[in-house]
Amino acid sequence: MNGPEIQQLIKLLSKLPGLGPRSGRRAGLALMKEKDRLLLPLLNAMQEAHSKVQTCIICGNLDTAEICTICQDPRRDREILCVVEEIADLWALERSASFRGHYHILGGTLSALDGRGPDDLNFSSLFNRLSSGDYKEVILALGATMEGQTTSHYIIDCLNPMDLKVTIIAHGVPVGGELDYLDDGTLTAALNSRRVV
Amino acid sequence: MNGPEIQQLIKLLSKLPGLGPRSGRRAGLALMKEKDRLLLPLLNAMQEAHSKVQTCIICGNLDTAEICTICQDPRRDREILCVVEEIADLWALERSASFRGHYHILGGTLSALDGRGPDDLNFSSLFNRLSSGDYKEVILALGATMEGQTTSHYIIDCLNPMDLKVTIIAHGVPVGGELDYLDDGTLTAALNSRRVV
Repeated sequence: MNGPEIQQLIKLLSKLPGLGPRSGRRAGLALMKEKDRLLLPLLNAMQEAHSKVQTCIICGNLDTAEICTICQDPRRDREILCVVEEIADLWALERSASFRGHYHILGGTLSALDGRGPDDLNFSSLFNRLSSGDYKEVILALGATMEGQTTSHYIIDCLNPMDLKVTIIAHGVPVGGELDYLDDGTLTAALNSRRVV
Repeated sequence: MNGPEIQQLIKLLSKLPGLGPRSGRRAGLALMKEKDRLLLPLLNAMQEAHSKVQTCIICGNLDTAEICTICQDPRRDREILCVVEEIADLWALERSASFRGHYHILGGTLSALDGRGPDDLNFSSLFNRLSSGDYKEVILALGATMEGQTTSHYIIDCLNPMDLKVTIIAHGVPVGGELDYLDDGTLTAALNSRRVV
């Protein structure tokens, strides 16, 4: 129907998370129809990203320097470290602008099912950072999933010998959420973590 | 939070049809995390597309040659021309493998609301192709929308003086569709176009 170059572009676009064959085709068509407005700028941005973006050697975030903007920022609180699963979680917390300390990205969770053990995650660099004694508090901001909770408990166990305040983010009713639509697990967590007003 | 190159990549990805800020971020993150598996191949495919993909000078399809594969194909029926709104419609018909003639892409529909008149669509090239006398039938495969139907009627009026068979694709119940879930317009069209079995 048309050249292999077009098919290849659509195939690769379809592989991106959130896109499938249909949306990949739509995106590919838009790119080819509007070369100057869409394709060329994206091409340049991808070339920039390819040559410049790298993983921060301290926290695991993606940035255009060896040490990311957050780790470099002198205005950030150097006494609190927030442990997250993925880069996307760090970005989400940054968008909320509710945390001004440092991060550490594990790169996933422990999972017996998927065969991910402690050696597959960035634990050794985490414990190295914490053993320096600079940090006073570690916040565990892992997902409220079975794997996330297992990983939190593993970290808590490992940090036990260190003199550190270890905290875990709250589980409960999401802001704007209606009780009627929430699952039992969330409701139980919200009830158990109730506080005196 | 991180370099402008990353923000720019995500901004441009978010502009693609079907993607928004959230999915653009997800796609951008995946690209940067897996440079070799995702970013580099897509980069190459986009470069290929940028240098090679062009609009067919006959029908308006996108391909890697001045005259597209369909217009060049000697096995296709050179007596039937199918008029569609957009390239995506041509691709959809090709996927259905139900049409073996030639295509003509209008580039949209007439629309008083959006200010698209006959001069904004590929009408003159259509009438040029048809006046050659090679085609025996014109199939109007425009959308079953107000604009699509207006455009069909405009073409029918223009082709009236020519000695051509002009047909229009059927409107009715989609295959697999249940009557209960269909709108009144579709049901009326399906009833009006009923046939003797």
